[in-house]
Amino acid sequence: FCSMSKPVILVTNDDGIVSPGIKALVEAVQKFGDVIVVAPDSPQSGMGHAITIHDPLRLQKVNQFGNIPSYQCSGTPVDCVKIAIDKILHKKPDLCVSGINHGSNAAINVIYSGTMSAAMEASIEGIDSIGFSLEDYAMDANFGPASPWIKSIMEHVLSNGLTDSKLLNVNIPHPSLGPIRGMKVCRQAEGRWEEEFVEGVDPRGQKFYWLTGNFATRDTGPGTDINALREGFISIVPSSHDLTHHRAIPILKSLEDINPGV
Amino acid sequence: FCSMSKPVILVTNDDGIVSPGIKALVEAVQKFGDVIVVAPDSPQSGMGHAITIHDPLRLQKVNQFGNIPSYQCSGTPVDCVKIAIDKILHKKPDLCVSGINHGSNAAINVIYSGTMSAAMEASIEGIDSIGFSLEDYAMDANFGPASPWIKSIMEHVLSNGLTDSKLLNVNIPHPSLGPIRGMKVCRQAEGRWEEEFVEGVDPRGQKFYWLTGNFATRDTGPGTDINALREGFISIVPSSHDLTHHRAIPILKSLEDINPGV
Repeated sequence: FCSMSKPVILVTNDDGIVSPGIKALVEAVQKFGDVIVVAPDSPQSGMGHAITIHDPLRLQKVNQFGNIPSYQCSGTPVDCVKIAIDKILHKKPDLCVSGINHGSNAAINVIYSGTMSAAMEASIEGIDSIGFSLEDYAMDANFGPASPWIKSIMEHVLSNGLTDSKLLNVNIPHPSLGPIRGMKVCRQAEGRWEEEFVEGVDPRGQKFYWLTGNFATRDTGPGTDINALREGFISIVPSSHDLTHHRAIPILKSLEDINPGV
Repeated sequence: FCSMSKPVILVTNDDGIVSPGIKALVEAVQKFGDVIVVAPDSPQSGMGHAITIHDPLRLQKVNQFGNIPSYQCSGTPVDCVKIAIDKILHKKPDLCVSGINHGSNAAINVIYSGTMSAAMEASIEGIDSIGFSLEDYAMDANFGPASPWIKSIMEHVLSNGLTDSKLLNVNIPHPSLGPIRGMKVCRQAEGRWEEEFVEGVDPRGQKFYWLTGNFATRDTGPGTDINALREGFISIVPSSHDLTHHRAIPILKSLEDINPGV
């Protein structure tokens, strides 16, 4: 599946290899190259950039997408990208696409997202990478309207390459907002989850806590991904794995004058 | 433990509540405020910004640090911060410190680090946060020389606050490099892990893969955290949860002209 002329496209996700979202993504991208799928064998939402250090990984060839070579892996989304490169492809793919996630990865959600972390892992390796997410958590979400837009983004990225940022966070508005109005290149909105843990008692009488919460943001002005999505546009945030807050470096320089005198 | 005058300091880590690193951190910070410890009940290295969505969490008060209120949680480092705020403190602490990690979180390691993700989670909540890591993976690593420097950083941060960046990634050089020479405020170096999976066969005859690898970087010039550490300085990287690659936004604007015409 590695002919000379066609780009090699690695497809992964975090909802697991049997999720409708990855099927929609495979269908949207398969005409653009030699596609290979390596995805988790179970749902891995919220795994962030987790890697599996303390346990062995399992890898199994599956027949999930007809002629497209497909593997399920027992690890996290980031593990899937690492093992795909090191043990299946034995080289870097030309492009990595992740998703389509069932649920938004706009704003701060990018931090918790296994979908985006898989794409970021590939970008750390220098591979052009795109994470796709649909603002609909439903298992039977309608990925149809997203498909032509994904194809347009694929054409653009494969023609032009991703130069300055190797990683795009693409979010597609909820289908209930009507036809997609276009695409906006944006910044990640500020926001956070207001947590509430549901408390309960398990069948053995032990107390448990279960995470839930509401996403809250006031950063919804023009130029943000949240704004684009609310207006019915696809949001595209060029993203980075450099967490340095560069502007703060000179502000903190006075720390260098400190010496506890030991 | 929430007197009016003293700051409330939340201590967490990713190596687990019984690790020597968190004990060294508790000892270094306890004089600065009312300390509370909420840490994982098992090692959580490499968990990145993972949160536990699909499973309930357990929380147990333990007597690990004498009079200091301490809890172990079955979740990830990020879960620990969330549950500490929502279910134990019922308010935000004044400062969150995470670590001391057994092993470096400089350069790209920040992305995979549970230690740093816990601190980042607090910073997303608007809490001043510091992750501390020692460049020594050994369980019996010598945290002693780091202690006076951690106290100096604590004094500075509690006096001045963290304004522009709410999150510091502090790495302490390997004790074998000799006495700590000082502190450098730096940027995160570029770098990546060159993966190799060890292959093996389990007792049932099934093949497995186990992640290992070597950290590789060429970005070791002045101004990087890697450079500071190699020269025997503590590296301090002001960090952010905004992954936007701002410089790339205008470059990608041409994507907005595309319409698949559906």
